[in-house]
Amino acid sequence: MPAPRLYLDRPLAPGQTVRLDPPQAHYLFSVMRRAPGDAVEVFDSRTGTYAAAVAEASRKAVSLTVGDRTRPLRTPPDLWLVFAPIKKARTDFIVEKAAELGACRILPVQTDHTNADRIRRDRLQAHAIEAAEQCGGNFVPEVADIVRLSDLLDGWTDRRLMFCDETLSGVFAALPDERGPWAILIGPEGGFSDAERARLRAMPQSHPVSLGPRILRADTAAVAALTLWQSTLGDWA
Amino acid sequence: MPAPRLYLDRPLAPGQTVRLDPPQAHYLFSVMRRAPGDAVEVFDSRTGTYAAAVAEASRKAVSLTVGDRTRPLRTPPDLWLVFAPIKKARTDFIVEKAAELGACRILPVQTDHTNADRIRRDRLQAHAIEAAEQCGGNFVPEVADIVRLSDLLDGWTDRRLMFCDETLSGVFAALPDERGPWAILIGPEGGFSDAERARLRAMPQSHPVSLGPRILRADTAAVAALTLWQSTLGDWA
Repeated sequence: MPAPRLYLDRPLAPGQTVRLDPPQAHYLFSVMRRAPGDAVEVFDSRTGTYAAAVAEASRKAVSLTVGDRTRPLRTPPDLWLVFAPIKKARTDFIVEKAAELGACRILPVQTDHTNADRIRRDRLQAHAIEAAEQCGGNFVPEVADIVRLSDLLDGWTDRRLMFCDETLSGVFAALPDERGPWAILIGPEGGFSDAERARLRAMPQSHPVSLGPRILRADTAAVAALTLWQSTLGDWA
Repeated sequence: MPAPRLYLDRPLAPGQTVRLDPPQAHYLFSVMRRAPGDAVEVFDSRTGTYAAAVAEASRKAVSLTVGDRTRPLRTPPDLWLVFAPIKKARTDFIVEKAAELGACRILPVQTDHTNADRIRRDRLQAHAIEAAEQCGGNFVPEVADIVRLSDLLDGWTDRRLMFCDETLSGVFAALPDERGPWAILIGPEGGFSDAERARLRAMPQSHPVSLGPRILRADTAAVAALTLWQSTLGDWA
């Protein structure tokens, strides 16, 4: 059994004693049944991964002693995932997959055809943390608060935009070999409005990309786009 | 609102009257509330997509009249997805995504580290049908019965095998530009056994491929592998 992996939301250093918050304490003591001396792997998304050991474990308190740093922080490429939240399970899924596949920031947006006007940001952030714990990395992407797509585009910089346009279906457009900051934009079920599509196509930063001849659900499109980007421009190469 | 899309498991032709089975009748009458004369789109995964209209609709019986064929059958490339079933929700998800992304056959396998020794084949097939109805295609991939991976490999032909090997992590191996029948093989959580990995590496049909530097869950790996294959060797080009 590999050691449990925990994300700790504070800068870590060898020699620290860290008292776990109640959910993590419950997980380690009651679910994983760890006892003093047992190994745990911890990371902070700031400095790296550390070996740690359970110092104290009871129903009342669980604390860890942080040991040596075993791996430096590995940040993913400067890739954002911008998406319109859909049904709860599929939104959770998109956040989980974005963390697994190495997006560095996750930005939910309201579009003309999006129903969701708010999200449980804390719950989505917890999904990103769990995915980071599972996938062996030591970076947790930030889940931003939901904003209107039009407001996000108003302040857009020179970050390139992989615009997944379902109306391009049948014409596969590959990504240009241009490095630097990127964002992937996935539309809602029902697609973008005509006004949104016209604006996105007119942006010089925007690269419309088709994801094949079949209509993909938004969650499938997100994973497919992350895969294409990582395998051509990202850290898979 | 686009017309509801239904897969009908019989060869269709213009002029036919088709009586729906109880689940589809319930869906069209009670969920979608369609009435005589309303448009429906139907496909049979044998000949193509047809315009149809509701002929009769009541709690007791719903029937359709099949009209003109609007699109010929479009089969996906000769790509199998071979995977080891995991937790129920993630297995459902893999089948749904394989249908959306254009696998032509879905083969669950038992591996040395797989817990599942049987699956609900009918339930998984229903997921593949629903995905085909949603994604606008007119082909439904067959979900095969579960077999042991070793038995499947005993009878393996010259079909090329994209062997997603999590131990290759960090060395991205691209797909060779070789056309013809392919299969994608995704391991279980916990990975392949040493014996399985040795056998798979020794097969001349096998092309080991890494899916980036992070450890992917099996469902993520399936979607990522299908995307890579379709965008380089499949029908996205």
